[in-house]
Amino acid sequence: MSTTPAKPFSLSVKAVVRDAQGRCLLLRRSAVNKHFVGCWEWPGGKVDAGEDFAHAVVREAREESGLEVELTGVAGVTEFEIEKVHVVVLAMDVLVAGGKLRLSEEHDAFDWVALADLAGRNLTPPNAAFMLEYARRKGNQS
Amino acid sequence: MSTTPAKPFSLSVKAVVRDAQGRCLLLRRSAVNKHFVGCWEWPGGKVDAGEDFAHAVVREAREESGLEVELTGVAGVTEFEIEKVHVVVLAMDVLVAGGKLRLSEEHDAFDWVALADLAGRNLTPPNAAFMLEYARRKGNQS
Repeated sequence: MSTTPAKPFSLSVKAVVRDAQGRCLLLRRSAVNKHFVGCWEWPGGKVDAGEDFAHAVVREAREESGLEVELTGVAGVTEFEIEKVHVVVLAMDVLVAGGKLRLSEEHDAFDWVALADLAGRNLTPPNAAFMLEYARRKGNQS
Repeated sequence: MSTTPAKPFSLSVKAVVRDAQGRCLLLRRSAVNKHFVGCWEWPGGKVDAGEDFAHAVVREAREESGLEVELTGVAGVTEFEIEKVHVVVLAMDVLVAGGKLRLSEEHDAFDWVALADLAGRNLTPPNAAFMLEYARRKGNQS
Protein backbone atom coordinates (compact mmCIF):
# COMPACT_ATOMS: atom_id res chain seq x y z
CA MET A 1 0.00 0.00 0.00
CA SER A 2 1.26 3.44 -0.92
CA THR A 3 2.32 5.76 1.89
CA THR A 4 1.92 8.92 -0.17
CA PRO A 5 -1.71 9.90 -0.57
CA ALA A 6 -2.98 9.35 -4.11
CA LYS A 7 -3.87 12.40 -6.17
CA PRO A 8 -7.60 13.01 -6.42
CA PHE A 9 -9.20 12.18 -9.75
CA SER A 10 -11.03 14.83 -11.74
CA LEU A 11 -13.28 14.34 -14.78
CA SER A 12 -13.04 16.54 -17.85
CA VAL A 13 -14.97 16.19 -21.08
CA LYS A 14 -14.30 16.99 -24.72
CA ALA A 15 -16.75 17.44 -27.58
CA VAL A 16 -15.61 16.08 -30.93
CA VAL A 17 -17.68 18.17 -33.31
CA ARG A 18 -17.65 16.77 -36.86
CA ASP A 19 -19.03 18.47 -39.96
CA ALA A 20 -20.68 16.88 -43.00
CA GLN A 21 -17.25 16.23 -44.52
CA GLY A 22 -16.10 14.44 -41.38
CA ARG A 23 -13.74 17.24 -40.38
CA CYS A 24 -13.50 18.06 -36.68
CA LEU A 25 -13.63 21.44 -35.03
CA LEU A 26 -10.34 22.59 -33.50
CA LEU A 27 -9.93 25.68 -31.33
CA ARG A 28 -6.63 27.48 -30.79
CA ARG A 29 -5.71 28.38 -27.19
CA SER A 30 -5.40 32.10 -26.71
CA ALA A 31 -2.91 34.10 -24.63
CA VAL A 32 -5.29 34.22 -21.65
CA ASN A 33 -4.36 30.60 -20.90
CA LYS A 34 -1.52 29.77 -18.56
CA HIS A 35 -0.47 26.73 -20.57
CA PHE A 36 -0.23 25.61 -24.17
CA VAL A 37 -0.94 28.98 -25.78
CA GLY A 38 -1.26 28.53 -29.54
CA CYS A 39 -2.05 24.84 -29.32
CA TRP A 40 -5.13 23.37 -31.00
CA GLU A 41 -7.75 21.36 -29.13
CA TRP A 42 -11.31 20.13 -29.10
CA PRO A 43 -13.82 22.18 -27.08
CA GLY A 44 -14.17 20.93 -23.51
CA GLY A 45 -13.36 21.40 -19.90
CA LYS A 46 -13.97 20.27 -16.36
CA VAL A 47 -17.22 18.71 -15.23
CA ASP A 48 -18.55 21.00 -12.50
CA ALA A 49 -19.19 19.62 -9.01
CA GLY A 50 -22.54 17.84 -9.10
CA GLU A 51 -22.90 18.24 -12.86
CA ASP A 52 -23.90 15.40 -15.15
CA PHE A 53 -21.12 14.55 -17.63
CA ALA A 54 -23.42 14.83 -20.65
CA HIS A 55 -24.58 18.26 -19.53
CA ALA A 56 -20.94 19.29 -19.19
CA VAL A 57 -20.21 18.30 -22.80
CA VAL A 58 -23.12 20.39 -24.08
CA ARG A 59 -22.26 23.32 -21.80
CA GLU A 60 -18.56 23.38 -22.67
CA ALA A 61 -19.29 23.13 -26.39
CA ARG A 62 -21.72 26.03 -26.09
CA GLU A 63 -19.36 28.17 -24.00
CA GLU A 64 -16.30 27.59 -26.18
CA SER A 65 -17.79 27.35 -29.68
CA GLY A 66 -21.27 28.91 -29.51
CA LEU A 67 -22.68 25.68 -30.98
CA GLU A 68 -25.56 23.68 -29.57
CA VAL A 69 -24.56 20.03 -29.74
CA GLU A 70 -26.15 16.64 -29.16
CA LEU A 71 -24.13 13.66 -28.01
CA THR A 72 -24.02 10.68 -30.34
CA GLY A 73 -21.50 8.36 -28.69
CA VAL A 74 -18.12 7.85 -27.09
CA ALA A 75 -15.03 9.18 -28.87
CA GLY A 76 -12.60 7.79 -26.31
CA VAL A 77 -10.90 8.34 -23.01
CA THR A 78 -7.45 9.43 -21.90
CA GLU A 79 -5.76 10.62 -18.72
CA PHE A 80 -2.87 12.74 -17.54
CA GLU A 81 -1.49 14.04 -14.27
CA ILE A 82 -0.92 17.61 -13.28
CA GLU A 83 0.57 18.85 -10.05
CA LYS A 84 -2.28 18.04 -7.71
CA VAL A 85 -4.82 16.17 -9.80
CA HIS A 86 -5.11 13.06 -11.97
CA VAL A 87 -7.33 14.16 -14.86
CA VAL A 88 -9.55 11.72 -16.76
CA VAL A 89 -10.70 13.08 -20.11
CA LEU A 90 -13.86 11.56 -21.58
CA ALA A 91 -14.35 12.64 -25.19
CA MET A 92 -17.77 12.38 -26.79
CA ASP A 93 -18.76 12.49 -30.45
CA VAL A 94 -21.41 15.14 -31.01
CA LEU A 95 -23.40 16.62 -33.85
CA VAL A 96 -24.32 20.25 -34.29
CA ALA A 97 -27.99 20.89 -33.54
CA GLY A 98 -27.90 24.69 -33.69
CA GLY A 99 -26.07 27.79 -32.65
CA LYS A 100 -23.44 29.79 -34.49
CA LEU A 101 -19.66 29.59 -34.22
CA ARG A 102 -18.43 32.13 -31.71
CA LEU A 103 -15.31 31.76 -29.58
CA SER A 104 -14.80 32.55 -25.92
CA GLU A 105 -11.77 34.44 -24.70
CA GLU A 106 -10.00 31.12 -24.13
CA HIS A 107 -9.49 30.66 -27.89
CA ASP A 108 -8.52 33.02 -30.68
CA ALA A 109 -9.08 30.91 -33.79
CA PHE A 110 -11.01 27.92 -35.02
CA ASP A 111 -10.61 25.56 -37.93
CA TRP A 112 -12.36 22.54 -39.38
CA VAL A 113 -9.65 19.95 -39.89
CA ALA A 114 -9.74 16.62 -41.70
CA LEU A 115 -8.80 13.76 -39.40
CA ALA A 116 -5.86 12.92 -41.64
CA ASP A 117 -4.53 16.45 -41.10
CA LEU A 118 -4.60 16.43 -37.28
CA ALA A 119 -1.03 15.16 -37.19
CA GLY A 120 0.14 18.37 -38.84
CA ARG A 121 -1.30 20.57 -36.08
CA ASN A 122 0.35 21.68 -32.87
CA LEU A 123 -2.09 19.82 -30.62
CA THR A 124 -2.34 20.45 -26.87
CA PRO A 125 0.31 18.03 -25.54
CA PRO A 126 -1.65 16.12 -22.85
CA ASN A 127 -4.30 15.18 -25.42
CA ALA A 128 -2.21 14.96 -28.60
CA ALA A 129 -1.58 11.21 -28.67
CA PHE A 130 -5.20 10.54 -27.86
CA MET A 131 -6.46 12.86 -30.61
CA LEU A 132 -4.18 11.20 -33.16
CA GLU A 133 -5.31 7.74 -32.05
CA TYR A 134 -8.90 8.88 -32.54
CA ALA A 135 -8.05 10.17 -36.02
CA ARG A 136 -6.48 6.84 -37.00
CA ARG A 137 -9.37 4.82 -35.63
CA LYS A 138 -12.18 6.97 -37.06
CA GLY A 139 -10.32 7.74 -40.27
CA ASN A 140 -10.31 4.05 -41.05
CA GLN A 141 -14.07 3.85 -40.51
CA SER A 142 -15.14 6.74 -42.72
CA MET B 1 -30.88 16.92 -37.85
CA SER B 2 -32.66 13.95 -36.37
CA THR B 3 -36.42 14.16 -35.92
CA THR B 4 -36.53 11.49 -33.22
CA PRO B 5 -35.26 12.75 -29.89
CA ALA B 6 -31.88 11.29 -28.96
CA LYS B 7 -31.71 8.94 -26.01
CA PRO B 8 -30.30 10.56 -22.87
CA PHE B 9 -26.78 9.55 -21.90
CA SER B 10 -26.05 7.97 -18.55
CA LEU B 11 -22.66 7.35 -16.92
CA SER B 12 -21.78 4.09 -15.23
CA VAL B 13 -18.46 3.09 -13.72
CA LYS B 14 -16.58 -0.14 -13.22
CA ALA B 15 -13.74 -0.97 -10.84
CA VAL B 16 -11.08 -3.27 -12.20
CA VAL B 17 -9.66 -4.72 -9.00
CA ARG B 18 -6.36 -6.53 -9.58
CA ASP B 19 -4.50 -8.69 -7.08
CA ALA B 20 -0.75 -9.11 -6.65
CA GLN B 21 -0.73 -11.78 -9.37
CA GLY B 22 -2.49 -9.44 -11.79
CA ARG B 23 -5.73 -11.36 -11.67
CA CYS B 24 -8.95 -9.33 -11.69
CA LEU B 25 -11.96 -9.70 -9.45
CA LEU B 26 -15.08 -11.00 -11.20
CA LEU B 27 -18.52 -11.18 -9.62
CA ARG B 28 -21.33 -13.47 -10.80
CA ARG B 29 -24.77 -11.93 -11.26
CA SER B 30 -27.33 -13.50 -8.98
CA ALA B 31 -30.97 -14.37 -9.61
CA VAL B 32 -32.17 -11.04 -8.16
CA ASN B 33 -31.08 -9.37 -11.40
CA LYS B 34 -33.51 -8.94 -14.28
CA HIS B 35 -30.81 -9.50 -16.89
CA PHE B 36 -27.70 -11.60 -17.43
CA VAL B 37 -28.13 -13.87 -14.42
CA GLY B 38 -25.06 -16.09 -14.06
CA CYS B 39 -22.80 -13.78 -16.08
CA TRP B 40 -19.49 -12.53 -14.69
CA GLU B 41 -18.61 -8.87 -14.40
CA TRP B 42 -16.44 -6.28 -12.71
CA PRO B 43 -17.98 -4.44 -9.72
CA GLY B 44 -19.68 -1.22 -10.74
CA GLY B 45 -22.90 0.60 -11.43
CA LYS B 46 -24.53 3.90 -12.18
CA VAL B 47 -23.10 7.21 -11.05
CA ASP B 48 -25.78 8.76 -8.84
CA ALA B 49 -27.23 12.16 -9.72
CA GLY B 50 -24.78 14.80 -8.54
CA GLU B 51 -22.16 12.23 -7.58
CA ASP B 52 -18.51 12.53 -8.56
CA PHE B 53 -17.44 9.66 -10.84
CA ALA B 54 -14.46 8.74 -8.66
CA HIS B 55 -16.68 8.58 -5.59
CA ALA B 56 -19.03 6.30 -7.52
CA VAL B 57 -16.19 3.87 -8.31
CA VAL B 58 -15.22 3.63 -4.64
CA ARG B 59 -18.85 3.36 -3.49
CA GLU B 60 -19.81 0.66 -6.01
CA ALA B 61 -16.70 -1.37 -5.23
CA ARG B 62 -17.52 -1.16 -1.52
CA GLU B 63 -21.19 -2.03 -2.00
CA GLU B 64 -20.60 -4.96 -4.32
CA SER B 65 -17.34 -6.43 -3.02
CA GLY B 66 -16.85 -5.10 0.52
CA LEU B 67 -13.42 -3.83 -0.52
CA GLU B 68 -12.09 -0.32 -0.01
CA VAL B 69 -10.37 0.70 -3.22
CA GLU B 70 -8.22 3.55 -4.47
CA LEU B 71 -8.24 4.61 -8.11
CA THR B 72 -4.95 4.33 -9.97
CA GLY B 73 -5.90 5.13 -13.57
CA VAL B 74 -8.19 4.61 -16.52
CA ALA B 75 -8.94 1.04 -17.61
CA GLY B 76 -11.03 2.09 -20.60
CA VAL B 77 -14.43 3.15 -21.82
CA THR B 78 -17.28 1.49 -23.66
CA GLU B 79 -20.92 2.18 -24.42
CA PHE B 80 -24.16 0.40 -25.17
CA GLU B 81 -27.80 1.29 -25.65
CA ILE B 82 -30.74 -0.02 -23.71
CA GLU B 83 -34.38 0.80 -24.30
CA LYS B 84 -34.41 4.38 -23.09
CA VAL B 85 -30.81 5.23 -22.30
CA HIS B 86 -27.39 5.35 -23.98
CA VAL B 87 -25.00 4.07 -21.32
CA VAL B 88 -21.34 5.14 -21.18
CA VAL B 89 -19.22 2.83 -19.03
CA LEU B 90 -15.99 4.29 -17.65
CA ALA B 91 -13.80 1.58 -16.13
CA MET B 92 -11.06 2.50 -13.68
CA ASP B 93 -8.09 0.48 -12.47
CA VAL B 94 -8.05 0.35 -8.69
CA LEU B 95 -6.01 -1.19 -5.92
CA VAL B 96 -7.34 -2.67 -2.71
CA ALA B 97 -6.68 -0.41 0.27
CA GLY B 98 -8.71 -2.32 2.83
CA GLY B 99 -11.98 -4.08 3.53
CA LYS B 100 -12.87 -7.73 3.24
CA LEU B 101 -14.54 -9.54 0.39
CA ARG B 102 -18.27 -9.69 0.96
CA LEU B 103 -20.89 -9.79 -1.78
CA SER B 104 -24.18 -7.92 -2.01
CA GLU B 105 -27.39 -9.65 -3.03
CA GLU B 106 -26.68 -8.70 -6.65
CA HIS B 107 -23.95 -11.35 -6.89
CA ASP B 108 -23.70 -14.92 -5.65
CA ALA B 109 -20.04 -15.76 -6.34
CA PHE B 110 -16.67 -14.14 -6.88
CA ASP B 111 -13.45 -15.27 -8.46
CA TRP B 112 -9.98 -13.89 -9.10
CA VAL B 113 -9.32 -14.54 -12.77
CA ALA B 114 -6.13 -14.20 -14.81
CA LEU B 115 -6.59 -11.81 -17.72
CA ALA B 116 -5.75 -14.61 -20.14
CA ASP B 117 -8.67 -16.62 -18.73
CA LEU B 118 -11.35 -13.93 -19.12
CA ALA B 119 -12.21 -15.27 -22.56
CA GLY B 120 -13.32 -18.55 -21.00
CA ARG B 121 -15.91 -16.88 -18.78
CA ASN B 122 -19.51 -16.10 -19.55
CA LEU B 123 -19.07 -12.33 -19.35
CA THR B 124 -21.99 -9.89 -19.17
CA PRO B 125 -22.71 -9.33 -22.88
CA PRO B 126 -22.75 -5.50 -23.10
CA ASN B 127 -19.27 -5.35 -21.56
CA ALA B 128 -17.75 -8.60 -22.83
CA ALA B 129 -15.89 -7.26 -25.87
CA PHE B 130 -14.56 -4.37 -23.84
CA MET B 131 -13.35 -6.64 -21.01
CA LEU B 132 -11.56 -8.90 -23.50
CA GLU B 133 -9.96 -5.91 -25.19
CA TYR B 134 -8.72 -4.77 -21.78
CA ALA B 135 -7.32 -8.24 -21.11
CA ARG B 136 -5.43 -8.25 -24.42
CA ARG B 137 -4.06 -4.75 -23.88
CA LYS B 138 -3.04 -5.17 -20.23
CA GLY B 139 -1.96 -8.77 -20.67
CA ASN B 140 0.65 -7.60 -23.14
CA GLN B 141 1.95 -5.06 -20.63
CA SER B 142 2.37 -7.33 -17.62
